Amino acid sequence: MSSVNSSHPPHAVDTLLEARWVVPVEPHGVVLEHHSVALAGDRIVGIAPIELARERSPNAKRVELAQHVLLPGLINAHTHNPMTLMRGLADDLPLMTWLQQHIWPAEAKVMGPEYARDGVELAIAEMLRGGTTCCNENYFFPDVIAATYRRHGFRAMVGLPVIEFPTAWAKSTEEYFDKALAVHDEFKGEALIGTSFAPHAPYTVSNASFERLRMLSDQLDIPVHLHLHETAQEVEDSRRDHAVRPFARMQSLGIINDHLIAVHMTQLLDSEIAQIHEAGVSIVHCPESNLKLASGFCPAEQLRRAGVNIALGTDGCASNNDLDMFGEMRSAAFLAKGVAGDASAWDAASTLRAATLNGAKALGWGDRIGSIEAGKQADLIAVRLDDIETSPMYNVISQLVYAAGRHQVSDVWIAGVRKLENRVLVGMDIRELMTKAQMWQTRIASSA
Amino acid sequence: MSSVNSSHPPHAVDTLLEARWVVPVEPHGVVLEHHSVALAGDRIVGIAPIELARERSPNAKRVELAQHVLLPGLINAHTHNPMTLMRGLADDLPLMTWLQQHIWPAEAKVMGPEYARDGVELAIAEMLRGGTTCCNENYFFPDVIAATYRRHGFRAMVGLPVIEFPTAWAKSTEEYFDKALAVHDEFKGEALIGTSFAPHAPYTVSNASFERLRMLSDQLDIPVHLHLHETAQEVEDSRRDHAVRPFARMQSLGIINDHLIAVHMTQLLDSEIAQIHEAGVSIVHCPESNLKLASGFCPAEQLRRAGVNIALGTDGCASNNDLDMFGEMRSAAFLAKGVAGDASAWDAASTLRAATLNGAKALGWGDRIGSIEAGKQADLIAVRLDDIETSPMYNVISQLVYAAGRHQVSDVWIAGVRKLENRVLVGMDIRELMTKAQMWQTRIASSA
Repeated sequence: MSSVNSSHPPHAVDTLLEARWVVPVEPHGVVLEHHSVALAGDRIVGIAPIELARERSPNAKRVELAQHVLLPGLINAHTHNPMTLMRGLADDLPLMTWLQQHIWPAEAKVMGPEYARDGVELAIAEMLRGGTTCCNENYFFPDVIAATYRRHGFRAMVGLPVIEFPTAWAKSTEEYFDKALAVHDEFKGEALIGTSFAPHAPYTVSNASFERLRMLSDQLDIPVHLHLHETAQEVEDSRRDHAVRPFARMQSLGIINDHLIAVHMTQLLDSEIAQIHEAGVSIVHCPESNLKLASGFCPAEQLRRAGVNIALGTDGCASNNDLDMFGEMRSAAFLAKGVAGDASAWDAASTLRAATLNGAKALGWGDRIGSIEAGKQADLIAVRLDDIETSPMYNVISQLVYAAGRHQVSDVWIAGVRKLENRVLVGMDIRELMTKAQMWQTRIASSA
Repeated sequence: MSSVNSSHPPHAVDTLLEARWVVPVEPHGVVLEHHSVALAGDRIVGIAPIELARERSPNAKRVELAQHVLLPGLINAHTHNPMTLMRGLADDLPLMTWLQQHIWPAEAKVMGPEYARDGVELAIAEMLRGGTTCCNENYFFPDVIAATYRRHGFRAMVGLPVIEFPTAWAKSTEEYFDKALAVHDEFKGEALIGTSFAPHAPYTVSNASFERLRMLSDQLDIPVHLHLHETAQEVEDSRRDHAVRPFARMQSLGIINDHLIAVHMTQLLDSEIAQIHEAGVSIVHCPESNLKLASGFCPAEQLRRAGVNIALGTDGCASNNDLDMFGEMRSAAFLAKGVAGDASAWDAASTLRAATLNGAKALGWGDRIGSIEAGKQADLIAVRLDDIETSPMYNVISQLVYAAGRHQVSDVWIAGVRKLENRVLVGMDIRELMTKAQMWQTRIASSA
């Protein structure tokens, strides 16, 4: 950890990020003081004490981060980013009223490539300003969405939707699959973009479609991104309609394997937790969405202790209402303690790990991102901690999780490219984004 | 609401705060667009449309808040602000380990007037930057604390501690009471400062002391600020030691009345909720502290529906780890929905009311602060909403509670005096505060 990887000659280093603190996430819980992270192109070369790194790479460009902690970019492991345009459209409503009388009618009115593109652009700006460098996207028009992330140099796993009813994206099961494969092919090999199958939920996708996408996800070696056990009602309905819980049905269809990214999971039996661990399923916990929609409580500490890979997601902005992974970390740690009845549950370092390396592993990108390690992609964020709200400073990781706000994120790099520089977005015009958001607001509000 | 109060002649108005939106809190849920709040000295004169207010008060100074929402200052109804100096000292620990092995030893080492003063100053800076204009303080050295709030023009109800063990503040029950009365006398009649009795908790205060302070609080007409039913353990211990729940014991001692500000209340029977309502007790809900210390879940929605006056507090920075009332509102609304299993629980307007007018009522200051109404004190905050993170904008109150961050607070007035101007603290030196915080950090860390 503390030496520049010798397989990379010093002259390969083009940039030294010189930070007051570095939290690499791996090894777990470590805080390095006055260290540099050395970059070569899109990669991390290594970490070394500032002076040593300078001696080794005298010609590298230096970025001074004297009041900052440098850490891996946060990974938002479950989002519906076009819905950022519906932030605050309909709050404080029972789940079904919210969906059926507000969200779906609004979506029916505006859903299309422009909506997907503009919503994702607004989301990218918000994510970058909040230290998120990668997201696991789940929405219609994945072609437009993937192209938007690529154009802005933002790393994303883009879900290929499968659902048994027609939308503006596809009219039939056949068309969903055809389009999914076409989008997968179009973005195969893209440096920053991956694709996954995104069957909506057990109650909106048929057994035949699950079997088909399971086969395809095996062949293509891509994840399956699924809302699962979000509410007690979902479990109850499945018992009524299929005689088994959704998890058991997914098992019988071969879906419970290490390709699966299972989102929400508020209803879990001990036996299911053991099977999840054994099968290598990743869970995405969305504490704020689960609270705001009163969906139930994910047994997050029980999952962590069982050794399950558990990541964090904000869910869409219509049910959160932000893409703030700092806030989500804080909520996750707090809620895990409350639900477990144990103040030592979800300690700060484990929470930060959930928001970084565990997210990477869930996406199948654990060897590529999620920690500051030699050879990994340079997805990094700097957070200024010299503020009233983060004083005094006893413990850097604790401060990041429990006290820092996302507005303290000063700089962001994705694949070595600076995307946020001292709070200013590089190559994105905030006024233009807000003007577009206002245009959509007018359209959406008139439909609601 | 919409006209300048005719009992105040127009020439009395010295300042017009011209806002894009005004949320007065009373009437409930109202959002006024393009309105001015007229001030005369330390008071609110009224609210009127911008143009009309200008016509009526042509010579008043105008403050343009074109992208802002103006609302009453937030009221933090339970804090231990000197402990801001212990932010992040010891996290992720079981409650008793945290208290006995970390917080109490550190307090024993540093407790004194300088610690109280410097901690409160750091807290004032944080509160002002986060839109809090009043707090309900509970700590030792109330003389120093009250003087510090007064010196900085910050509104505070300062608790006069009573506890049955010696501290640096007082050595005996007699001394606690003597000093309490002396501090009460010293600050009687101060415009911004009130005092309350602050018996620590049922398990640390004797029946005799409760009876005595009950009598005094009646005589002096001041509140009683008490941690009550914070954990299930507290209730269990009381049943063992006193044969009754703490609430029943407090009832028998005459403490359950409309002077009582009962903090936490995670353990409540339906019958207790009914008695609380009937007696006019105010509850302070501290959702983040209750989660972080795994204390239990306050039935916040049940209390609200029962008509109980329920306010919000952050608790101290050692168990939160911030004084962020925006974050606390969000957590309160989310948690109430989750605990009630009802997404319509604690709607945004009710949550904002808890953080403002209900706090004022809890302190006995419901006629003085907590809403923008003619005759009330001009404790006001402006929040900029023209940011990526609060776009688009469907519903102002929803945006304040679910999407805005405290760093969007631009301006703060207390009793008509501007304390924060476009994010800059008036009359407080941030660097100096942080240097002091660092000095205390060194002292406290060396004692831990």
